[in-house]
Amino acid sequence: MFSSQFTAESSSHGMLERDFTVGDVPGVLWSPASGPDRAPLVLMGHGGGNHKKHPAMSGRAQRLVTGCGFHVAVVDAPGHGDRPRTAHDEAEIAELFRARAAGEPEGPIVVRYNDHLAQLAVPEYQATLDALQGLPEIGADGPVGYWGINMGTAIGVPFVAAEPRITAAVFGQHWPDVLADKARQVTIPIEFDLQWDDEHISREEGLALFDAFASKEKSLHVNSGRHKELPRFEADSAVRFFARHLGGSVTASA
Amino acid sequence: MFSSQFTAESSSHGMLERDFTVGDVPGVLWSPASGPDRAPLVLMGHGGGNHKKHPAMSGRAQRLVTGCGFHVAVVDAPGHGDRPRTAHDEAEIAELFRARAAGEPEGPIVVRYNDHLAQLAVPEYQATLDALQGLPEIGADGPVGYWGINMGTAIGVPFVAAEPRITAAVFGQHWPDVLADKARQVTIPIEFDLQWDDEHISREEGLALFDAFASKEKSLHVNSGRHKELPRFEADSAVRFFARHLGGSVTASA
Repeated sequence: MFSSQFTAESSSHGMLERDFTVGDVPGVLWSPASGPDRAPLVLMGHGGGNHKKHPAMSGRAQRLVTGCGFHVAVVDAPGHGDRPRTAHDEAEIAELFRARAAGEPEGPIVVRYNDHLAQLAVPEYQATLDALQGLPEIGADGPVGYWGINMGTAIGVPFVAAEPRITAAVFGQHWPDVLADKARQVTIPIEFDLQWDDEHISREEGLALFDAFASKEKSLHVNSGRHKELPRFEADSAVRFFARHLGGSVTASA
Repeated sequence: MFSSQFTAESSSHGMLERDFTVGDVPGVLWSPASGPDRAPLVLMGHGGGNHKKHPAMSGRAQRLVTGCGFHVAVVDAPGHGDRPRTAHDEAEIAELFRARAAGEPEGPIVVRYNDHLAQLAVPEYQATLDALQGLPEIGADGPVGYWGINMGTAIGVPFVAAEPRITAAVFGQHWPDVLADKARQVTIPIEFDLQWDDEHISREEGLALFDAFASKEKSLHVNSGRHKELPRFEADSAVRFFARHLGGSVTASA
């Protein structure tokens, strides 16, 4: 068991923000400034090169916390945010930048590096969930969701495959090479985002990963546009997905 | 120009319901019981074997009218609802039932029969739009959407391809054989529904029709399940799509 503690606390726009560490892993927990004694939790995974408080994370948290009254937590992935980079991290990032500059496909590098990070991150996410479920406002038997796109999917699919406490998940925008085998073990409801004109992930690859999920209830949202053009309304859709599956309703502000 | 008139009027659950005819074509117009002087219009097309007041139509109308304050109109397709069946209708329906009973594919029959109906229905929809735009509460220059799945797509794609007054559309669940050529002429924002386990329309066929739309903004919603299992939350999604594109917001009741 990792030790966990809160290290900072602030509040704005109806959200309480608490920094925490679980072992060496820094995280953030966003919660309603006021609300019922207990509420569902959504764990999120950030994208490659980003960190736990990237605006994409705090923006989604705002929708879930003030729109649904949920708790939301993110931890920095290995080599990201406030965590040190290893020589292996540096080498893989240099190789990615080299391939990008040379106009070579990024997929093979992202797939293998994200797989490496996921193997480190899955036990960290499990320890984080253990610690958060020890809080009275979350509790050990409440509904828990997972939301991560890009690298958040590379970490999230093996995490959710290994973790029966997660009951609904939003994924998207990754390759099937490593993840399809894990997706075949996932049976909870999922929503999956894919960009129809993604310059890195082909339609066939994106559809193959969606198809691999064993979930009886699964939805695929495809939008025109390139890799980084995922429309903002898909965040609203994910929030409604979690409201449907974790309980509760979305107020007009979400 | 067809002559048009209202033939009946009633009101319930915050919706004013007015039956009308345009030429020989019977239709229904649902409107907010109270609201601003002018509001956007959504034309809808019903499914094969159904009619203008099928619960799928009135249910969608309720969401658009009371949720968004929009007007909604549907007309009976040729050979459907209050309209007479021709000998050709009877023969095609008999052939469809024969194929279904024999376990033969329905697609080829539905495709050719719906194409026949669409050729009749497109000018009827255009005349209906002419008449409705003559109403002061709709007007000639307000935003107009189209929403039709199944046969509503078979009629709607050629209608929207021919009709510049339509500025946003929701389609889904049809074959590309006849419609892909028309879809290549459609450039407005669309949302498209497809069932991943459709026993009549293959994944490749469904994806090919979505791919054919020339729209810069297009979204595909795929859900697990068979042809008739399109989830009810896709109707809510379509309502939000129209609220985004025709103007206005969705209240909590939608």
